[in-house]
Amino acid sequence: MTEFGFIERIAQLFSGLPANGFEGIGDDCAVLPLGSGESLLFTTDLLTEEVHFLRDRTSPRELGRKSLAVNLSDIASMGAQPVATLLSLALPSDATGEWAEEFMQGYREMSEEFSAALVGGDTTRSASGITINVTAIGRAADDRIKRRSDARPGDVIFTAGELGASGTGLRDLLEGRCDTPAAALHRNPQPQVAEGRWLAGRPEVHAMMDLSDGLASDMRHILDRSGVGAEIDTALIPVAAGSDLRTAACGGEDYKLLLTADADAAAQLAAAFRQTFRSPLYPLGRITRDGGLVWLQDGRPVELDWQGFRHY
Amino acid sequence: MTEFGFIERIAQLFSGLPANGFEGIGDDCAVLPLGSGESLLFTTDLLTEEVHFLRDRTSPRELGRKSLAVNLSDIASMGAQPVATLLSLALPSDATGEWAEEFMQGYREMSEEFSAALVGGDTTRSASGITINVTAIGRAADDRIKRRSDARPGDVIFTAGELGASGTGLRDLLEGRCDTPAAALHRNPQPQVAEGRWLAGRPEVHAMMDLSDGLASDMRHILDRSGVGAEIDTALIPVAAGSDLRTAACGGEDYKLLLTADADAAAQLAAAFRQTFRSPLYPLGRITRDGGLVWLQDGRPVELDWQGFRHY
Repeated sequence: MTEFGFIERIAQLFSGLPANGFEGIGDDCAVLPLGSGESLLFTTDLLTEEVHFLRDRTSPRELGRKSLAVNLSDIASMGAQPVATLLSLALPSDATGEWAEEFMQGYREMSEEFSAALVGGDTTRSASGITINVTAIGRAADDRIKRRSDARPGDVIFTAGELGASGTGLRDLLEGRCDTPAAALHRNPQPQVAEGRWLAGRPEVHAMMDLSDGLASDMRHILDRSGVGAEIDTALIPVAAGSDLRTAACGGEDYKLLLTADADAAAQLAAAFRQTFRSPLYPLGRITRDGGLVWLQDGRPVELDWQGFRHY
Repeated sequence: MTEFGFIERIAQLFSGLPANGFEGIGDDCAVLPLGSGESLLFTTDLLTEEVHFLRDRTSPRELGRKSLAVNLSDIASMGAQPVATLLSLALPSDATGEWAEEFMQGYREMSEEFSAALVGGDTTRSASGITINVTAIGRAADDRIKRRSDARPGDVIFTAGELGASGTGLRDLLEGRCDTPAAALHRNPQPQVAEGRWLAGRPEVHAMMDLSDGLASDMRHILDRSGVGAEIDTALIPVAAGSDLRTAACGGEDYKLLLTADADAAAQLAAAFRQTFRSPLYPLGRITRDGGLVWLQDGRPVELDWQGFRHY
């Protein structure tokens, strides 16, 4: 069974249980409306050695930063402000002491950068590799939360940054080139928290998520949840310097925002974004009524075997 | 560095960061007052293969139940009602398919029993053993939350159940006797959620926590947080059938509530508890002004090398 197959099975198993006020499985975060006009948002991510990172090719400080960053990116992707995290660490005997101290220094740096408190956790011994689990909690006004499920036919699709650097960096790392700019970007993702909050304040933004598994995979989540299709012009995909088109579409872990916006307001949105962040929103194509995800070259549909990213 | 040394170091590292309204590290759960008279409570626990469980000596269904139970016990220990959980699973290739399905069946059974929704999670491949992380969320009225820090000199110390069965069961399992009653209890802890909520409604209950690391260790957490001492009469420790006194005091994972209550109301509290739950509160001794944790035999202090429990 694939990961997504297993998640669907879990959702099915639990569908009969009370929701206790939560919007649960299916988006980047679970959402709990507090009844006061605000909601809390929850997300969790598990990183295991040799699957999500190679210990000899990342510093503990970078790993501390990244463990938090990937969770803050989920909070950002729905437009929320991070408020707190819980951190679980399973450490083998050769990754305690100095390793653990440096990991926590990195985790603290990023916590401080995004004003997130560390409110709980669990530390334990591990019989084999390092495992890290972070649960992040965010806060947002109810009417500023963006979901995967709100894309509408005619919407313009944007990414809030260039793609492919992380995928290229991962390839560099696996081939032993640890000091390339792309490898550094792969180890040091930066969650688009300010961008997410700003976009959440714009009613013309309909659907939003973060690109963690790659455009080819993540775009399909928006389509599935919204019940729509999409046409993406491959020539419009913003390929990061040193990367290539296929990696930009299929590589994972870029942690840039992916969003759809009302076509009539899209140009104005992009201009205001550029003015605020000194960085463009890149239009990729359009949401269609149906038909799945269609890649266009020179305006014509092409068959591409592009799939999302799988870890190591 | 010990686990507690590392946790203290983490608390120190993060002390300068904004708390964002949370009561953080130091109790069974982090507490977020919502401003409406209610709070949310958060806890997280990581279970790793060979440290917290042996795959060939527990069924996946039992492990699913236990992964949730240990977290619900933390929610119960502060008097809250569980509302939701997030579940992260890292599974090696030989623990997918049927194993994963049975694990989820067990997790679902216990979720249903305590009306907890599953609202998020992460599933990933593992290069070595199984790792499970659960984050549980609870809800309670602000004025019904019980903490480790509220024990007062003169309080009577109680446990809400017999002790030692889990520790004895663990010994049985490690020695290959997987079918003893104690081994079954070790694999199937039951969180005292109803008991915790009931006790939380009694103002004469001052401090409360759950016994996960053993009385000898956990009692010291109440003393440290409350700035008090304690005298425990070893003859009063309720030893579970088939267990022994030392295991009852030092063994872990009994998941019974440990509480302190005003001496003037203690007898009435115990009587009402027995009437409600058909099971006694066991008095163990008294909170003192200071002097650490003192074990008494025949009314006299004795030196015992009793320490808390460490996993496998």
